[in-house]
Amino acid sequence: MSQHTTTIQVRYAETDQMGVAYHANYLIWMEVARTDLCRALGFRYKEMEAEDGILLAVTEAHCRYLSAARYDDEIVISTTLGEANRRFVSFDYELKCADRKVATAVTKHIYLNREFRPTRLPDKFAPLLGIE
Amino acid sequence: MSQHTTTIQVRYAETDQMGVAYHANYLIWMEVARTDLCRALGFRYKEMEAEDGILLAVTEAHCRYLSAARYDDEIVISTTLGEANRRFVSFDYELKCADRKVATAVTKHIYLNREFRPTRLPDKFAPLLGIE
Amino acid sequence: MSQHTTTIQVRYAETDQMGVAYHANYLIWMEVARTDLCRALGFRYKEMEAEDGILLAVTEAHCRYLSAARYDDEIVISTTLGEANRRFVSFDYELKCADRKVATAVTKHIYLNREFRPTRLPDKFAPLLGIE
Amino acid sequence: MSQHTTTIQVRYAETDQMGVAYHANYLIWMEVARTDLCRALGFRYKEMEAEDGILLAVTEAHCRYLSAARYDDEIVISTTLGEANRRFVSFDYELKCADRKVATAVTKHIYLNREFRPTRLPDKFAPLLGIE
Repeated sequence: MSQHTTTIQVRYAETDQMGVAYHANYLIWMEVARTDLCRALGFRYKEMEAEDGILLAVTEAHCRYLSAARYDDEIVISTTLGEANRRFVSFDYELKCADRKVATAVTKHIYLNREFRPTRLPDKFAPLLGIE
Repeated sequence: MSQHTTTIQVRYAETDQMGVAYHANYLIWMEVARTDLCRALGFRYKEMEAEDGILLAVTEAHCRYLSAARYDDEIVISTTLGEANRRFVSFDYELKCADRKVATAVTKHIYLNREFRPTRLPDKFAPLLGIE
Repeated sequence: MSQHTTTIQVRYAETDQMGVAYHANYLIWMEVARTDLCRALGFRYKEMEAEDGILLAVTEAHCRYLSAARYDDEIVISTTLGEANRRFVSFDYELKCADRKVATAVTKHIYLNREFRPTRLPDKFAPLLGIE
Repeated sequence: MSQHTTTIQVRYAETDQMGVAYHANYLIWMEVARTDLCRALGFRYKEMEAEDGILLAVTEAHCRYLSAARYDDEIVISTTLGEANRRFVSFDYELKCADRKVATAVTKHIYLNREFRPTRLPDKFAPLLGIE
């Protein structure tokens, strides 16, 4: 099962004057969460980038904000591998604070090489992302 | 015509180690852009919040990333008022760097009162948002 | 001993195009670290602010950057309570990545009330900060 | 006179739940300000980095916070070239909101080459920074 759970704690810097976590930070948390999922799937994104020269560029992000996250709240992010092929991968996210749903989101990505051009995912990563 | 143009310049702090502007920052720039649109429509968001106690909470953000924005690039954001009624308002964005399209996006919002509950938009703002 | 250790992991969003963690983020990490120290000393900063109406405002921050922190690095922050009295408190920080020293820093703070005016630290917190 | 003035407007994203601009953002604004000063002195930092391979790494930042900056406030940053030689450069900053002083700060920098090692400032930049 290609799912992983990450917990982050809302930082003071992430709040805004409404007294809640500023909405752009959710995208940052989701990046932390998908990095953790990658690690659980068997590779470190850091090495994919540094050693294999594969960048995972965000092509789309869609987030629905359902309830507020506040300072010091523990936000549990369930990240699921969505579609994946040699050109493209997507991730689904559900953010909760205890039993309360905070947000759901999707991010879509393509693989880029060091020249910032779309490239095919190298063989070694394919099985890790469930690609045949 | 309920459209406005805002120019931001990509800050060093907004870049990441890919050498491009980190994707979450686009949401921050869009907030700057819609604040500018509000001012062009005849009200300051700051005062709406401080004096009228109306918060414009983001319920949904959807961004398509089309090409990279880089350090020092001037990004021109065209913001258009989308749907608006007494409960809800949306904004559409197009981000360009010179002639190159960088991103398109939509944000959706509801009005909250100081107790963080959904509320109706007060009369004085309705005509400014083109609501009859 | 009024010292506490916090570990953070450098987020992708925190890197810049130099390929290292952007220097302003260190101040954010230090805030996470001193919040943890407060918890270890016996109070949650969140409650101090929400229930007691005491804000810990930063009046000075001084950071020496000794070596780079990079994406995914684990940064261990040792936070020590510095001077503390009824008007003022300071914290000292040492940031390390494994055995390498990354930064040292000091932050200085005053207590503010909800009206944003300097105020005396309430009795209940004094012993926790080692104030007689 | 090696001084330059930059105006930034506090973004909503930069506020925190105290209702003021979060202190780490001042370092980001100061970087925008010193980039503007560099431009006024005759070079673009972007090109110094991309074409000459010279990175201006922060070795020290020291900021005194004197009064709050709030959402939508226009902050005028006066940046002055401090000491400068072939190994080192510093900048001084004064941040004001109308007539109110918001902060004063200093940042210190060394020049690094692309391998992240300290290097001498190339000849072409020396006169621009007032170095004989």
